[in-house]
Amino acid sequence: AALVGIGFALLQWLLFSRVKVSSHDSSNGYKVKLIEADEEEEGIDNIEVSIKCAEIQHAISLVNTFFLFTEYKYLGIFMGVFGVIIFLFLGSVKGFSTKSEPCIYNQENTCKPALANAVFSTIAFLLGALTSVLSGFLGMKIATYANARTTLEARKGVGKAFIIAFLSGAVMGFLLAANGLLVLYVSIYLFKLYYGDDWEGLYESITSSGLGGSSIALFGRVGGGIYTKAADKYPEDDPRNPAVIADNVGDNVGHIAGMGSDLFGSYAESSCAALFVASISSFGINHDFTAMSYPLIISSMGIVLCLITTVFATDMFEIKNVREIEPSLKRQLLISTILMTAGIAMVSFFAWPSEFTLSDFGAMKEVKNYCSPVQDVADSCRIGAAKNVIFGLALGYKYVIIPIFAISISIYVSFSLAAMYGIAVAAIGMLTTISTGLAIDAYGPISDNAGGIAEMAGMSHKIRERTDALDAAGNTTAAIGKGFAIGSAALVSLALFGAYVSRAGIKSVDVLTPKVFIGLIVGAMLPYWFSAMTMKSVGSAALKMVEEVCRQFNSIPGLMEGTAKPEYANCVKISTDASLREMIPPGALVMLTPLIVGTFLGVETLAGVLAGSLVSGVQVAISASNTGGAWDNAKKYIEAGGSEHAKSLGPKGSDCHKAAVIGDTIGDPLKDTSGPSLNILIKLMAVESLVFAPFFAAHGGLLFKFI
Amino acid sequence: AALVGIGFALLQWLLFSRVKVSSHDSSNGYKVKLIEADEEEEGIDNIEVSIKCAEIQHAISLVNTFFLFTEYKYLGIFMGVFGVIIFLFLGSVKGFSTKSEPCIYNQENTCKPALANAVFSTIAFLLGALTSVLSGFLGMKIATYANARTTLEARKGVGKAFIIAFLSGAVMGFLLAANGLLVLYVSIYLFKLYYGDDWEGLYESITSSGLGGSSIALFGRVGGGIYTKAADKYPEDDPRNPAVIADNVGDNVGHIAGMGSDLFGSYAESSCAALFVASISSFGINHDFTAMSYPLIISSMGIVLCLITTVFATDMFEIKNVREIEPSLKRQLLISTILMTAGIAMVSFFAWPSEFTLSDFGAMKEVKNYCSPVQDVADSCRIGAAKNVIFGLALGYKYVIIPIFAISISIYVSFSLAAMYGIAVAAIGMLTTISTGLAIDAYGPISDNAGGIAEMAGMSHKIRERTDALDAAGNTTAAIGKGFAIGSAALVSLALFGAYVSRAGIKSVDVLTPKVFIGLIVGAMLPYWFSAMTMKSVGSAALKMVEEVCRQFNSIPGLMEGTAKPEYANCVKISTDASLREMIPPGALVMLTPLIVGTFLGVETLAGVLAGSLVSGVQVAISASNTGGAWDNAKKYIEAGGSEHAKSLGPKGSDCHKAAVIGDTIGDPLKDTSGPSLNILIKLMAVESLVFAPFFAAHGGLLFKFI
Repeated sequence: AALVGIGFALLQWLLFSRVKVSSHDSSNGYKVKLIEADEEEEGIDNIEVSIKCAEIQHAISLVNTFFLFTEYKYLGIFMGVFGVIIFLFLGSVKGFSTKSEPCIYNQENTCKPALANAVFSTIAFLLGALTSVLSGFLGMKIATYANARTTLEARKGVGKAFIIAFLSGAVMGFLLAANGLLVLYVSIYLFKLYYGDDWEGLYESITSSGLGGSSIALFGRVGGGIYTKAADKYPEDDPRNPAVIADNVGDNVGHIAGMGSDLFGSYAESSCAALFVASISSFGINHDFTAMSYPLIISSMGIVLCLITTVFATDMFEIKNVREIEPSLKRQLLISTILMTAGIAMVSFFAWPSEFTLSDFGAMKEVKNYCSPVQDVADSCRIGAAKNVIFGLALGYKYVIIPIFAISISIYVSFSLAAMYGIAVAAIGMLTTISTGLAIDAYGPISDNAGGIAEMAGMSHKIRERTDALDAAGNTTAAIGKGFAIGSAALVSLALFGAYVSRAGIKSVDVLTPKVFIGLIVGAMLPYWFSAMTMKSVGSAALKMVEEVCRQFNSIPGLMEGTAKPEYANCVKISTDASLREMIPPGALVMLTPLIVGTFLGVETLAGVLAGSLVSGVQVAISASNTGGAWDNAKKYIEAGGSEHAKSLGPKGSDCHKAAVIGDTIGDPLKDTSGPSLNILIKLMAVESLVFAPFFAAHGGLLFKFI
Repeated sequence: AALVGIGFALLQWLLFSRVKVSSHDSSNGYKVKLIEADEEEEGIDNIEVSIKCAEIQHAISLVNTFFLFTEYKYLGIFMGVFGVIIFLFLGSVKGFSTKSEPCIYNQENTCKPALANAVFSTIAFLLGALTSVLSGFLGMKIATYANARTTLEARKGVGKAFIIAFLSGAVMGFLLAANGLLVLYVSIYLFKLYYGDDWEGLYESITSSGLGGSSIALFGRVGGGIYTKAADKYPEDDPRNPAVIADNVGDNVGHIAGMGSDLFGSYAESSCAALFVASISSFGINHDFTAMSYPLIISSMGIVLCLITTVFATDMFEIKNVREIEPSLKRQLLISTILMTAGIAMVSFFAWPSEFTLSDFGAMKEVKNYCSPVQDVADSCRIGAAKNVIFGLALGYKYVIIPIFAISISIYVSFSLAAMYGIAVAAIGMLTTISTGLAIDAYGPISDNAGGIAEMAGMSHKIRERTDALDAAGNTTAAIGKGFAIGSAALVSLALFGAYVSRAGIKSVDVLTPKVFIGLIVGAMLPYWFSAMTMKSVGSAALKMVEEVCRQFNSIPGLMEGTAKPEYANCVKISTDASLREMIPPGALVMLTPLIVGTFLGVETLAGVLAGSLVSGVQVAISASNTGGAWDNAKKYIEAGGSEHAKSLGPKGSDCHKAAVIGDTIGDPLKDTSGPSLNILIKLMAVESLVFAPFFAAHGGLLFKFI
């Protein structure tokens, strides 16, 4: 399935690459069935514009690659250091002994030594991190490849531009989903050559790939978020604005590369959580490889079914005008969800034995495979989608309420049916449509970039209107994507938290013991601390950028009149430096908290911290995204002036519009920097705790031991 | 001690009442030792102004009384209905049987029937509610009595005005603290006539007085918060502004009456939590009345020591100019804290037996009275003060971090030493300086009102500057007061939560059971829901007020020029109606959540909800207060223009000032409506759960039973 996904992605890429950027070629090479009744072609014979587009695209792509390579240099150091930490911490659990030990959960078997776990965990961590890096990089390459092509196609009409933007999103979706699956499958296969019968050890070490993936995602999201917001305060896309290239690069860095890494992280973590829980349940003990691989099978199924959906959406439905784009995107989500529900039911029926037991914190929980866990997953998908549609429409703070109730119901039902395994599977269920989701998510920033290129290349206002329409149509679906990310993050981290508690040998996480309670209240504080850091970073980066732009306008003669070129490079440097420097403190907060708490305060307090950050982080993330989104929409509503009411509030520059702009400015860092990173915070702390659980259980709680 | 406190309060009242409002009298009757070198008397011979002041004061006082009586009419209905609910729910625990039962914790004794608990809980609830109403009403009376007097004294200099404002605050502080103590002591004494040896039942029913006090406080705070913010959007204190009377009334309603009820609620709850925990420990079982009454003894001690502090501060330190006010207020807090630390150590040494056991969720925890719990309480006081000083200075979101660490350390140390009793005692420790704290808190709004009266009475600009200086000096200490309220609320609700878990017979509140976890995540959501409601209410009330003010300016000829009088009454009506109508939904959310969750989802889920709302609510409350406060300070900083830097940002009307005003407007409902009410939310839900625990344990969890 992974190979099919990759093949399909390459095929799509081949198709849209036929749109030549540098020369005039009116055929986009794709079998276009679009009817564009009320549209006319606009300036497609202007070869100068095409050349200018190619230049701009080239500049964006170069800067982008440069930024990512600089970022990856830092991340390389981080990976090296953290890899050593993993090796030393986990190796020290049994004093670096090379002797085999009796297994923890299945005492009759012999398991590989703790040192092997240290070695393979380190390898898995590096593999996961590299895959995450690769995902981000590929996503960025595709996006910078597609943006100018979208601009050029927009000259022929909105439908053609939509096809290009959406196809490039799909290339990214399939490539990343397939890539993640392939890496995970191949690692398990190779690790098994050494581990053989010791599945506990095998899946415990595989878990580290989730840690690797997510930690890269954290830095990518935070760094990208700061980058994009640093440059985002001016008349966007005005070629005289020195920050304009930095702004367009920021869109790719934050929304595309960050998101690519993030979704690979979620995917790896949810799979690892389910695999780990399964390995200490009857699947693992009886060595039932098919049942064991259930999480991978439904992910494979996801790729195939999303592929079918994509073919449907591009070939079957014919988009006649802009208003049809949004329903078409939503239809895609709906179709893929329905197909997945049926698919998961089928897979579950064949893959699982008719009865099995799951580990439920020491006790074993019996599950009967009469399709009830299946319906559960299906239900949670449906609840997820319903929740997220509402979420996407939400305009404000109070929209925390419904998602939280939906998540609670999903958790209660999944847990009652199949304990923590149910939670992990529900999370995977939400992520199975990842290819389609990612396609829709990536489509927005690509259209945004395309608009920027159109303006910088001096194309007519009509082209810009078309790309704006594409971008706006993707906004609601992007909100749905964010909802999926938050909902699945809550489920994934709960499952990882459960796995951590099992692995650390904690009997119960009782709120009314002081160790747990202080963890709970400090954990609930962490999302605030983290948000404070990221928001401050955005502010200081933006201030530097303002100063530089002012300096250039004052000191470069002719810049204001458009006769001189601004020094784009300085602005790019400011964004790059700021985002790389400022991503370190919040990153360190997230990466160090579990290590410090586990080492000094012990496993119970760490359990409290995880629970606290989970329940509080979900609320902050949802409200941050909603508040920011509501303000953004309010501004766009006034600017578009689409109704009598909107016109009464506008036009641009009115007091009302100014107020909306202020709201948007306050909301931006919430929505684009803090919000999306908080998902990663809660998942990453949970997966890190799980990886280090043996160490904390053996040597943790130094402070209390000392007292 | 209560009678001494009341006597002292009345004496102070007598002293400052010698300032006559309606006639010209240059002596304020108090032995004033103030040296006012650089001040001159300002227009004290203008008898017209004095008469005008008296008129305005009369108007404010009348409207205030009218509003409170209207509010109390609604609250009377609420009290009646909720009293019936308490009686029916608690009576039904044993089917309204009048038979005595064996006690729950001390099975050898015979306890009074559950029906008696229902009857006495209802009585205690009504008593607590009435005391809370009385506290708010008295506070308001004192404040409206003091405001014009402060204005008149300000003509003679800032020092004299300070004495009046501070003394009236002190009257309120002592009256309310003494009143609370007296009601609690008398109720216990009277209830004991019936209960005799059954201390379990006695203190269980006394707990309801905390519920009564806090529920009134909730409505007072929310209603008052909406009232004050509805009228708070215009050039304050301009007599042409129709909303000006409503604004001044709002200050009293929100800050004085609401706060009076609130602090009585905290006081009653923390005492009840400690009393309840003690009653099921060795104190209660061995009928050691002195040890049992420990919470009341340290509160009495608090009144006496605060009295000494007040005498010190007014007579010993001589205030020469405005800059000395703030240090003087802080010195008061510091002295009272130091005195209390010594006092508590002494009381603990004599009141407690040398060794005793405390109930720790079924197990008994042994405590040795070698002064270690004493040091603990002292420590928590000191941590509290340090935390709160920092808190008061905090400028932003990230200042959640330090208070949370301070609270965590307090909780861990108190719990380790004396389980839940330690937590309750730590909370009482923070509240023992309530008289001084309340005096400082009340001083701010009184000065604010005084300034309003000066401006409306057409006094010179100098007078206004003096009252403004008084008000500003109280701002930092008011922030400290808020910090105390939040910190003590966290401790109180944790203690109540612990008592609830004991009473509901829950073995452990394990986060990793689905029932508890869904409670936890939903509970963490409640502060957001509640804030969304209150913020929306403020917005809609303010909008109506804007419309009315505009209408009056447009339709009343001569209003703008100051030749015609505005229709104050309309604006007062809008504030009154809005606050009474809008306080119902948030109030209902808080009051109904424990009832619904307990009845339908059972005691475990309710435990989760309490833990979730506690850990999340503390964060939201702290960050709301800080954010709002930071914005407010930024605005004042620019307006004052006290430094070169401040001048570079100003003056009033500059872009920078406009931005600061917007921040302040956004922050106002956070700081004055949502923030202070959230403390009550977390305490109230905990005390309500404790009162209804027997019912939930007997009949709760209907939904899960049904499934």
